[in-house]
Amino acid sequence: MKLLKTVEWVPAARGKFVPGFIRAVDQTRLPGEMVFLEIRSVEVLREAIKVLRIRGAPAIGVAAAFGVVLAAQKSKKSGAPLLEEVKRAAAHLASSRPTAVNLFWALGRMKKRAAASAGLPANKFKEALAEEALAILEEDRKICRQIGSHGLELLKGKKSILTHCNAGGLATSQYGTALAPVYLACEKGRKLHVFVDETRPLLQGARLTAWELTQAGIDATLICDNMAAQVMKEGRVDMVIVGADRIAANGDSANKIGTYGLSVLAKAHKVPFVVCAPTTTFDLKTPSGEKIPIEQRARDEITTFAGKKIAPDKVGVYCPAFDVTPADNISAIVCENGVCRPPYKKSLRRACK
Amino acid sequence: MKLLKTVEWVPAARGKFVPGFIRAVDQTRLPGEMVFLEIRSVEVLREAIKVLRIRGAPAIGVAAAFGVVLAAQKSKKSGAPLLEEVKRAAAHLASSRPTAVNLFWALGRMKKRAAASAGLPANKFKEALAEEALAILEEDRKICRQIGSHGLELLKGKKSILTHCNAGGLATSQYGTALAPVYLACEKGRKLHVFVDETRPLLQGARLTAWELTQAGIDATLICDNMAAQVMKEGRVDMVIVGADRIAANGDSANKIGTYGLSVLAKAHKVPFVVCAPTTTFDLKTPSGEKIPIEQRARDEITTFAGKKIAPDKVGVYCPAFDVTPADNISAIVCENGVCRPPYKKSLRRACK
Repeated sequence: MKLLKTVEWVPAARGKFVPGFIRAVDQTRLPGEMVFLEIRSVEVLREAIKVLRIRGAPAIGVAAAFGVVLAAQKSKKSGAPLLEEVKRAAAHLASSRPTAVNLFWALGRMKKRAAASAGLPANKFKEALAEEALAILEEDRKICRQIGSHGLELLKGKKSILTHCNAGGLATSQYGTALAPVYLACEKGRKLHVFVDETRPLLQGARLTAWELTQAGIDATLICDNMAAQVMKEGRVDMVIVGADRIAANGDSANKIGTYGLSVLAKAHKVPFVVCAPTTTFDLKTPSGEKIPIEQRARDEITTFAGKKIAPDKVGVYCPAFDVTPADNISAIVCENGVCRPPYKKSLRRACK
Repeated sequence: MKLLKTVEWVPAARGKFVPGFIRAVDQTRLPGEMVFLEIRSVEVLREAIKVLRIRGAPAIGVAAAFGVVLAAQKSKKSGAPLLEEVKRAAAHLASSRPTAVNLFWALGRMKKRAAASAGLPANKFKEALAEEALAILEEDRKICRQIGSHGLELLKGKKSILTHCNAGGLATSQYGTALAPVYLACEKGRKLHVFVDETRPLLQGARLTAWELTQAGIDATLICDNMAAQVMKEGRVDMVIVGADRIAANGDSANKIGTYGLSVLAKAHKVPFVVCAPTTTFDLKTPSGEKIPIEQRARDEITTFAGKKIAPDKVGVYCPAFDVTPADNISAIVCENGVCRPPYKKSLRRACK
């Protein structure tokens, strides 16, 4: 199965990483067009993350890591002033989106490497940063495959799953989190069917998940978010699998708006509800979901569509980008180190060791 | 409060009803444009119902009744051949949409009146039909106000409600069912806030409910369907109020897709879930919800928007127009004759007497 490279680093010449640029799929243009962005500045990258051209917690982390490399390669400074510039770029990228924790994790790792490499000549310093970002990318690919492999055990005997938003290859550097077990199952020749929530307002399910699943030849059925209860009632969903943007120490999981409601519906229909995410999504310093900041998006994401007005001007709008699913509604959290079960306070901590 | 006349009959001249035409708001053009259709043939009316230019169970019933008048006024026949023509038109209109039962009820009433008037001269026969259709319209207005008045009792102490789809003035000849109590409360000077589910795929909530509420000066907040669970979790919904397209003898209620899921969420959050509908929506011959036929809509309602493709061609689609909320999830059913409480098998029958 050939999966798309969602985010990658393209060096200008052979033999060294820097200079180079980020190549990334513009996810706002799918499924209509496949457009690759070539990103050469921190400002352009930040905008791309903000408007969701690059999206998905792991993919954002990888892209931001390369953003730090972009900042370094552009600088004509060296030593402490160069380090300062890199730190400023990291802070600027960190302010692009508030909820997903991988972003902060990746930037933190880049800052650590930068600090450790501060004594190097400027060109070596820049190569070191590129090396670190590439390591994050490679690890992300590996981690997704591991999540897939652990998740596969949970899929034994299951025929049809339901997913929300996009936690597939497009949300990571390549393989996906929630969809990794599905891809692995299909690689092994198993037939699986996937119900895809379209995921309003930005339709990541319809535009991205449906697209990548059908590209991979997997049997997928698109539904509106408000149809999920009905397909569960009809007994057509064996498991719900979603990704996460941040998981608190007690297992409460922030993910795309609509995930919480889905977890309530799954519980009512006795359908197992599984979260797949790398340990970089775990935020053990945050005790519970109440402390996770929730991004609010602009009203026109709901009131307009493709430039067309679909609601009256005078109506109020509430547009949270995420919600928090309480640990109680989650059957299992699958990470690269295995399957975590309740009580999550213990199992998540163990998985991070 | 001045409410729009969604469907009405416009006689060509004073002093008699026939000839005339149906004037109706084209609900597919809202909120962008306010366009009134002038419908002069059964075929045009049937198409308008099929593509949801005219929609909402009570409004469909009223419009179909006038459709029978259109068929009669066009005919040059009289006596038995005229009666036959009227019956054919009624059958043709009955095949426009399968779920809402008011359509069949209104057509049945028109056929009964036609049969009873079969001995009259053609012009008197046509006037009799117009009279019957106008009576249906007037009764619908009166019924909606009565539903509002009974529903108002349930709203005591409530500040914020949530509704799905459009069961407002646009769904009836004027006043609405689910929104009637809200309009009445506001007429009495009470402040109520309404969360409006946008209602995918055709966005009747965003386009119609948000429009009519803001037109009436009522405080409304638009949300995507998948945000309803979150606003309930935040404690911001005191009651869910929806309409219905058909209510079985045991209280199981068919309504716009998404209503069932909403009822599960309301139950989980201990929010009362109320259905408002005229007794013409009650189908006491159908014992339970399983027997209610559910209309399936075309795939492009989900895969395209305003001419733009939003999903890949190869993906499967499931697009039921309605779902059935089990009586167990319904706190009360409000009709023009009062508030029905469980067990509905008894209370619905009593309300119909």
